[in-house]
Amino acid sequence: MTTIDQGITTGSGVDTVVADDRAHVFHSWSAQDKISPLPVAGGEGSRFWDYEGKTYLDFSSQLVNLNLGYQHPALVAAIQEQAARLCMVQPAFANDVRGEAARLIAERAPGELNHVFFTNGGAEANENAIRMARLHTGRHKVLSTYRSYHGATAGAIALTGDPRRWPSEPSIPGSVHFWGPYAYRSAFHATSEAEEGARALQHLADTIMVEGPSTIAAIILETVVGTNGILVPPPGYLAGVRELCDRHGIVLIADEVMAGFGRCGEWFAIDHWGVVPDLITFAKGVNSGYVPLGGVVISESIFDTFRERAYPGGLTYSGHPLACAAAVASIKVMSDGVLDHVKEMGRDVIAPRLAELAARHPSVGEVRGLGMFWAVELVRDRATREPLVPFNAAGPDAEPMARFTAACKERGLWPFVHFNRTHVAPPCTTTREELLEGLDILDQALDVADEYYTGS
Amino acid sequence: MTTIDQGITTGSGVDTVVADDRAHVFHSWSAQDKISPLPVAGGEGSRFWDYEGKTYLDFSSQLVNLNLGYQHPALVAAIQEQAARLCMVQPAFANDVRGEAARLIAERAPGELNHVFFTNGGAEANENAIRMARLHTGRHKVLSTYRSYHGATAGAIALTGDPRRWPSEPSIPGSVHFWGPYAYRSAFHATSEAEEGARALQHLADTIMVEGPSTIAAIILETVVGTNGILVPPPGYLAGVRELCDRHGIVLIADEVMAGFGRCGEWFAIDHWGVVPDLITFAKGVNSGYVPLGGVVISESIFDTFRERAYPGGLTYSGHPLACAAAVASIKVMSDGVLDHVKEMGRDVIAPRLAELAARHPSVGEVRGLGMFWAVELVRDRATREPLVPFNAAGPDAEPMARFTAACKERGLWPFVHFNRTHVAPPCTTTREELLEGLDILDQALDVADEYYTGS
Repeated sequence: MTTIDQGITTGSGVDTVVADDRAHVFHSWSAQDKISPLPVAGGEGSRFWDYEGKTYLDFSSQLVNLNLGYQHPALVAAIQEQAARLCMVQPAFANDVRGEAARLIAERAPGELNHVFFTNGGAEANENAIRMARLHTGRHKVLSTYRSYHGATAGAIALTGDPRRWPSEPSIPGSVHFWGPYAYRSAFHATSEAEEGARALQHLADTIMVEGPSTIAAIILETVVGTNGILVPPPGYLAGVRELCDRHGIVLIADEVMAGFGRCGEWFAIDHWGVVPDLITFAKGVNSGYVPLGGVVISESIFDTFRERAYPGGLTYSGHPLACAAAVASIKVMSDGVLDHVKEMGRDVIAPRLAELAARHPSVGEVRGLGMFWAVELVRDRATREPLVPFNAAGPDAEPMARFTAACKERGLWPFVHFNRTHVAPPCTTTREELLEGLDILDQALDVADEYYTGS
Repeated sequence: MTTIDQGITTGSGVDTVVADDRAHVFHSWSAQDKISPLPVAGGEGSRFWDYEGKTYLDFSSQLVNLNLGYQHPALVAAIQEQAARLCMVQPAFANDVRGEAARLIAERAPGELNHVFFTNGGAEANENAIRMARLHTGRHKVLSTYRSYHGATAGAIALTGDPRRWPSEPSIPGSVHFWGPYAYRSAFHATSEAEEGARALQHLADTIMVEGPSTIAAIILETVVGTNGILVPPPGYLAGVRELCDRHGIVLIADEVMAGFGRCGEWFAIDHWGVVPDLITFAKGVNSGYVPLGGVVISESIFDTFRERAYPGGLTYSGHPLACAAAVASIKVMSDGVLDHVKEMGRDVIAPRLAELAARHPSVGEVRGLGMFWAVELVRDRATREPLVPFNAAGPDAEPMARFTAACKERGLWPFVHFNRTHVAPPCTTTREELLEGLDILDQALDVADEYYTGS
């Protein structure tokens, strides 16, 4: 280990890091010869840095998981202490931090969601949620939306409504996709948020009718759709979905893997609308991903199904003590003003500043979001709303967004870019000054997007 | 935190641990009202203890994952150091410990298996292995054996050949099960190991013929079947499977989640037979489960498929630095004599002592295994080989095994019990004296099993 300027500590030299990576690490979602992974040496707070000492302000929170930022001292200490006490005990035992983490999560979950099944991440959480729903209802279909992501294991990818599903088809049977609300690109020809919400509900009711209510175990929704566009549900939509589920005995699953644990300024995003689902799935923000952890929060009613009947699912690392210790520390930190900070920064800093950018940059078609979870949707023409790059663009078609991304990185901002959008999803602890700094860089990079604008 | 006798450190009081667990933790594979999870306070080496200070010698390595035992100081230190450096960086970046872990694993893998895709555990490893095989071959079917376990996500459970699959059916399409070798309960009426191996290969060749070689992407096998019986393949079987795969362009996947990383006295169990698969899946022993980690080791040929074409799979925590740091430390410790210790203890201590027990206890139908991975199969009658309890027994039917288990626990041994078998799968660092102590307790507990013996 060597120590360089600014107290930044690095391990092996960058040449070794790159050589090992290229020779031996197989990367997610990538053509292995077409990538040049940036070697990351360290991070602190809202920033990380490479081996040349270049720092980046992180508007992506890595993969929207570092809700408490890099190397939060309370989380680091909790992991170190738990490592010294007991790293691992299997799921069949009772363990103090596992129980404490479950209690802290249950206490924060809405309604009577009092029980927690821990997994290693979000995909497994969704896999288990649909297994619970199917066994609880005795039905097999699961409805989910287009423009959604639920994970990459066979069950979770079947639910997913974006192109990442295509290469894994056919997957599990019984997965049905419908259209969720997205006023800016309405599937229902709506002209207002209110109309979009009402028509989206009608569409869901019609889909339930023609699929057959008695065949549907669950509806799973990202409470606020994440990677596919920070799609915030219109007022009344989630309450309407809840009502349809109640009417037909369908389990409502809120996928809060990305939106939960502070991202939207609430413990669970669904609290924003006062709706109580039957199951909540979580991961990422529960412990900022410092140790892999996910899970399902379970209602009393579904819990009752598995009191006398064995639940047929599990995994070696369910309720992993090291991961749970990080969750306990994270929840305690977040309880100390972080949620309020997120709400305030969203309302007073991000929202007004993005509105300014939209007013000044013609390529900004819409900005939307809440808390520290925002999308800037880029278009070639505000009238037609033609996206700056086509749906699922790759290669030369994606050049405008690639150039926009490069412009951000050059200036020291790491953006979250998907299709024709850039998202603003920094750590929930990011300060006002850091937000303004990052939004200024976005402002400059949007000049690149404006070059492609063809509207009047 | 309070410190009690023997330097054992515990967190909250046991009443809180039990209360939190019963109120909020949903347990794997269980009817929630029918369990009383033992509160575990700590562990060291080959033993763990509860809050009353009772210690157990662990012949299960928790879930056959603690290959280096409880709280190995080198692993604890590695986790603490990495936590201080950098807990988390997402898969798109290059990271020093991620690269080092991948290199150390690739260096130990047989043949040209040079690339590592990291997951959080074994189920995800198998999910990704079959995805790779399908895309590499352009075919969809995957063949796996009855009496196998591959994980509980939708794809992994479809491959699984034990009753844990049943409640999750129908799962992904294209999963076909065949019979593997198991000389003691031959599906092929074989009367010797050699005949069992030959007939099992003929059965597989016939299955490939009738399923259609051009439809089969992969054959996935636990190199040594784990939970379903420590079924060690007869000489020549794995080489024969490799030859069938070569002949028909089928990907051979060795599931080494339980058998790998020292359990069988080799880095990978398949090294015992000198066979090179196309993909190896791993988890558990790679870092003793101190931090959730699994993965797929990938051949050059399959890697080539994803050089220019994007691999359509991933997960937020792929190559998690904390997990990889624990793997690096674990591989270094294991490189320092642990494999030889496992081989020696298996050959010189476990094998002869289990043979003695078999000679003395009529209920022992067969003992089999290698390294630190053994099964004792219990029967009511050696002539008919009727198992001590029926296949998948529960409730009163399972009483003989429940009483046997209780007899072990009373005496301070935590056994691994499945159906009519008890397995001997202690940490790979367990000493000769500890093994003899545990085997003595097994000896005493087998008196309980003998009570149910009805043979002559």
